[in-house]
Amino acid sequence: MDTNWREDEVIEAVIGAGSASLAIGDDTATIAPSSKSRVWCSDLVVDGVHVEVDRWPLAAIAHKAVAVNLSDLAAAGATPEATLLALACPPAIDARAIAVAVAEAADRLGAPLVGGDTTRGATLTLCVTALGQVDGTPLTRRGARSGDHLLVTGPLGAASAGLRRVLAGEAPEALPRHLHDALFAPQPRLAHGQLAASYGASAAIDVSDGFSLDLHRLADRSGVGFELDHVPIAPDATLADALGGGEDYELVIAIHDPSALIDACRAAGLREPIVVGRIVADARQRTLGGEPLAPRGWIHGASSPDITR
Amino acid sequence: MDTNWREDEVIEAVIGAGSASLAIGDDTATIAPSSKSRVWCSDLVVDGVHVEVDRWPLAAIAHKAVAVNLSDLAAAGATPEATLLALACPPAIDARAIAVAVAEAADRLGAPLVGGDTTRGATLTLCVTALGQVDGTPLTRRGARSGDHLLVTGPLGAASAGLRRVLAGEAPEALPRHLHDALFAPQPRLAHGQLAASYGASAAIDVSDGFSLDLHRLADRSGVGFELDHVPIAPDATLADALGGGEDYELVIAIHDPSALIDACRAAGLREPIVVGRIVADARQRTLGGEPLAPRGWIHGASSPDITR
Repeated sequence: MDTNWREDEVIEAVIGAGSASLAIGDDTATIAPSSKSRVWCSDLVVDGVHVEVDRWPLAAIAHKAVAVNLSDLAAAGATPEATLLALACPPAIDARAIAVAVAEAADRLGAPLVGGDTTRGATLTLCVTALGQVDGTPLTRRGARSGDHLLVTGPLGAASAGLRRVLAGEAPEALPRHLHDALFAPQPRLAHGQLAASYGASAAIDVSDGFSLDLHRLADRSGVGFELDHVPIAPDATLADALGGGEDYELVIAIHDPSALIDACRAAGLREPIVVGRIVADARQRTLGGEPLAPRGWIHGASSPDITR
Repeated sequence: MDTNWREDEVIEAVIGAGSASLAIGDDTATIAPSSKSRVWCSDLVVDGVHVEVDRWPLAAIAHKAVAVNLSDLAAAGATPEATLLALACPPAIDARAIAVAVAEAADRLGAPLVGGDTTRGATLTLCVTALGQVDGTPLTRRGARSGDHLLVTGPLGAASAGLRRVLAGEAPEALPRHLHDALFAPQPRLAHGQLAASYGASAAIDVSDGFSLDLHRLADRSGVGFELDHVPIAPDATLADALGGGEDYELVIAIHDPSALIDACRAAGLREPIVVGRIVADARQRTLGGEPLAPRGWIHGASSPDITR
């Protein structure tokens, strides 16, 4: 099947999809001046790696492409402003439908689609770039200090548990709702990230490749170690899912005094972040329940998706 | 061959490649506050569509991925600030070498690489996002008015002529230098675009898909027509190359009074833009030498690369 889309038609379809996208169709999209810092990031969603275009609903692919970027903004404590979509699409797949689905997901998640690129390509590839504003200084992986508490914004492992069941043949619509949504409609923890930044968090990272791996990355960039007391595991998930499954898109937050942040989350109607351990000065000390914790998770290019460094 | 790169190693390789990239390795890259407008854009370079990874020098692929984005900044009259690279890479291709080549091209072109993403993917795909600052209001395709003169920043068709000769079997290094450079090392017309914006240009577009096609796009968005008197053709190129070959990355500029811009370009040591025609009010009137000029060029998704709408 050749759906016979053309780049100009993709642009027109997105313009027709919503008022938020009216600026699209130019060489560049304009960013208004601001006295605040901004952050930006690009993440890819590739058919056969992150999604399966033959098996995933189009809306889920589009949601994921936007959400993984907004999760990076959440880790910086940012408020989303806008997105770009660069789309490489095989002729047999309708680029118009994908672009419109991304525009709808971007509107729904608060970061309207304002530009991008469309091209042919043998492998369906979505590159979303997101822009956000930050009150104060953006959070990074680099500020964690000895004595900080470590928090996560929710239980881990549901996306991995859901994926395992889908790969074993279970129909996506037959999954328990919390596994289905974790896998197909992850919610970037934007409000948590914004509160973490304003209540004095020292560092943050989102759990994209695996909690233990992402926590090691935060520790590496900060030059510190950590002692975990426990790991909150999502219902129907295993400890291995929670430690190395990835794609949870919860935030890991380092903060000296967590009580004000926890109170602020409760007051804002958000799930309270869970204290799971603390940062220590010795960068070699990285433990769970007193035992060494290896970084496990997904590293692109590694021979196995579940690797130990 | 499996070059056995891993995402973490790609990041380390880029960090090691130059001081400009030291901020890389976080979830997001930070944009400092500014009182100026910014513009941003994403363009894809896909193996088998825009480049051939088996035949193109790596440095040329990297240069192209950055330059096509900076050409969009040039059309807005912007000064580049920074870039992101999202890279989908097959296992057999060394993602580290590509990322380092992109970082070097980005440094050389004045827009340091500050972040991005690396993932596996069956098709080599580079998605560069560029950010730039604009003095005053960004130029777009939308402001051209009846009575404006139309200028181009140089002769057209060299990239297309060079590509034709390479596809016919001529070795890239045997090409005449101006064809080789047009194809493998296009130079975004940043200084021209900045002067155009500051000397009152009403609209601009870069020639990426074909001069006639891109000119129609500018006319479409501005709701106007045009009368071309002539088309400047690069040595060794044909009129068809110049009208529909694309990838020239010269700018098309609409401006009411072109003399001050031309003088400013001369004073700045830049090639003087060439007056090729004028904008007219009737959007149906689009002519070259009095004859109707169809939009010819490359539209992604169209069944033939040389199409008439």
